[in-house]
Amino acid sequence: MAKTAQKAAAGKITRVAILGFGNVGSSVAQLLRAQRFAGIELTHIYNRDVERKRTGATAKGLNAGIVWTENIKDVLSAKVDVIIETIGGIDPIEGWLKAALRSGKHVVTANKQLIAYKGAGLAKLARDNNRVLVYNAAVAGGVPVIPATLHGLQGDRITRLSGILNGTCNFMLSHMEQGAEYADVLKQAQAAGYAEADPSADVDGFDARAKLCILVRAAMQFGINPDEVPAQTIRNVGAIDFAYAKELGCTVRQIARAEYRGTTLHARVAPMLVPKTSPIAWSHGTQNMVVTTGDFGGDVVFSGHGAGGNPTAVAIVSDLLAVVHGSNSVSLPVRRKVVTGEFLAPHYLRFIVRDKPGIVSAISGALTKVGANIDSILQRPGYPKDALPFVVTTEPCLTSTVEKAVRLIAKMDTMLEKPLCLQMLTEDDRAED
Amino acid sequence: MAKTAQKAAAGKITRVAILGFGNVGSSVAQLLRAQRFAGIELTHIYNRDVERKRTGATAKGLNAGIVWTENIKDVLSAKVDVIIETIGGIDPIEGWLKAALRSGKHVVTANKQLIAYKGAGLAKLARDNNRVLVYNAAVAGGVPVIPATLHGLQGDRITRLSGILNGTCNFMLSHMEQGAEYADVLKQAQAAGYAEADPSADVDGFDARAKLCILVRAAMQFGINPDEVPAQTIRNVGAIDFAYAKELGCTVRQIARAEYRGTTLHARVAPMLVPKTSPIAWSHGTQNMVVTTGDFGGDVVFSGHGAGGNPTAVAIVSDLLAVVHGSNSVSLPVRRKVVTGEFLAPHYLRFIVRDKPGIVSAISGALTKVGANIDSILQRPGYPKDALPFVVTTEPCLTSTVEKAVRLIAKMDTMLEKPLCLQMLTEDDRAED
Repeated sequence: MAKTAQKAAAGKITRVAILGFGNVGSSVAQLLRAQRFAGIELTHIYNRDVERKRTGATAKGLNAGIVWTENIKDVLSAKVDVIIETIGGIDPIEGWLKAALRSGKHVVTANKQLIAYKGAGLAKLARDNNRVLVYNAAVAGGVPVIPATLHGLQGDRITRLSGILNGTCNFMLSHMEQGAEYADVLKQAQAAGYAEADPSADVDGFDARAKLCILVRAAMQFGINPDEVPAQTIRNVGAIDFAYAKELGCTVRQIARAEYRGTTLHARVAPMLVPKTSPIAWSHGTQNMVVTTGDFGGDVVFSGHGAGGNPTAVAIVSDLLAVVHGSNSVSLPVRRKVVTGEFLAPHYLRFIVRDKPGIVSAISGALTKVGANIDSILQRPGYPKDALPFVVTTEPCLTSTVEKAVRLIAKMDTMLEKPLCLQMLTEDDRAED
Repeated sequence: MAKTAQKAAAGKITRVAILGFGNVGSSVAQLLRAQRFAGIELTHIYNRDVERKRTGATAKGLNAGIVWTENIKDVLSAKVDVIIETIGGIDPIEGWLKAALRSGKHVVTANKQLIAYKGAGLAKLARDNNRVLVYNAAVAGGVPVIPATLHGLQGDRITRLSGILNGTCNFMLSHMEQGAEYADVLKQAQAAGYAEADPSADVDGFDARAKLCILVRAAMQFGINPDEVPAQTIRNVGAIDFAYAKELGCTVRQIARAEYRGTTLHARVAPMLVPKTSPIAWSHGTQNMVVTTGDFGGDVVFSGHGAGGNPTAVAIVSDLLAVVHGSNSVSLPVRRKVVTGEFLAPHYLRFIVRDKPGIVSAISGALTKVGANIDSILQRPGYPKDALPFVVTTEPCLTSTVEKAVRLIAKMDTMLEKPLCLQMLTEDDRAED
């Protein structure tokens, strides 16, 4: 069984290379400089066009002996014990990290896409080479939900995960809650450096989806293909939806959720209505939040900074320390699992119509036809009759059932926009008393 | 460095003994039965008067081959790999666990008093015998704040911890928030099984203090003597204080907090005023909550069930799995540290007086004399003049400074009760945006 940490760490210098010297990579270097952990030495930094980095402000104060290189082979062939990867993306990183593991290097990575799509193979390669592969920084940045799950919740049977895993969307939606429109908050997020010029990875849910898959694997021991998890964009959410959500005691957030019922794993990333009483609604700005629900331990809530150089660097350096101290993660057997994006949930439907008699009856007819029951109909006053928003909420039913009705309704000639259909989180997700 | 978990766990059966078959011990046994983790076998159960336990309802369905004993030597001399201790208290448990470590057994314990007072010595003994000592269940029950800290936040420099670490007090105070008086909620907590017949460990802060010391060690790497941490009782908090707290945008909670500034470690367990906007005010009922603040990662919030058989069993069984899978904790060097209970904070002072002219002037005179500035004076209408409650809040000053003034004020012949003096958590402890 375990050797003591002291013994594992004693006397030996651990040589560390950082791949990628952007915001996260340079924060890792500066954190290591500030903390001066015994026995850890930063020896290599790889970046394209590296001279610009070496002479830049973020390199200030770093050890003069560090080898700066733009040739990955300089790192892979060097006497380095741990590679820290902060570049992102699958190609060419997958090949580089495989080469690193094969040449006896441990790997710490913040790369969510790589781990979500290729994590199982990399983990096997690490085991076969008796090396460690850790990626706590890949999910929720500075919020240690992966280590907490792997070391503190494996005794439970986790049946539900709900979270806010994309700080950019949370920033945008919590600003829209104050009345702004999507296009304006996107510009604001881009100006603040939270959103990319092409924001699709964030707003269309691909970033949160990769993180959700990693979390499902760590907490529920299910291996799933990210492409099988439906991701719904937040681009169609408008200020009007926050106004209606408020009337329903809710707000709107991009939610990543998974639930295991019977033999079926449900998973989805989408904008959803969240009760204001839910801990998930506590998250503001770029914060991340995860709620795990276990059969034995009940709900556990984690929240904090999901992104940013320093919080992500904390996760990476904590992983590095775990490698240095010989800490293994508990790894229970993982089963492959097919996913459905269906949830049995109440749904929120928002329509923009050219008002004329009979619309409500046509909509309720379409819902009745598929077997969905209306729970409430909301129409706020003060909107023009020629572009009238109104909202229908349903009793709990399957998402595919509602979407069938929505496809029928969308064909009505009075519909000015594609109707918006959102799942509503229920009181089950509320903080317990 | 690390061996892979698979290798460490492969093939071997880990034989486990449980000491104490009360609520937590029996929950551990039932959780192991339900989860059927590969390679783990419960072989021994120790309890006083064991026959009653063996034939009781909580033993239902357990393996018939388990050895039930009321003689600790039967366990200590047996071929057992891991001892799970759920009895509590220092004597005789310390001796038993030392004997277990010396005879080559790993130890998993939920014993907060033992770890707070004797943890450093036991950890050394474990290292010397190449065994593992883990105690995640000792702090915040089912909330994995210890593993999250040890595996996910060691890269940060944690400078502040604030938390709700005693579910009994939180249950009582969150019920007092609804208007009930202390004596009534104590009876209610006792009837619900949350509070003991002698509630002092909970209400006088000794339970939370032990947990705070363990958390300080794990998160800040400071070894402190629990007896040096001031613990202030909640017995003097009345419904009236919740009414005044509400006017100040606050509620009252038993808070365990530590803060490292410059070279001084501040730590205290006491009822405090908490802004309603603080994540700490989110905790209701028996929930636990911890907020860590790091120089690099900022605030991280953890919340969930702090007590109860099943949540605590999740922590214990997760520890057991970590032992089985050969997981070492990161253990950075711990420094001994002297503690002060002083905080530079605004303070809340509540007086019950026989009203007569000049009282406010006398009180403000006493505060001025010690150099404390009044921030607000609150007097709610509708109370009798012969037992009039009123409240003064101060600008930030040291607790000892305010207490000096309070001692002067307490001598005034119009004071009907000892004045109540509470620290107020400030906006710094608020959720960040």
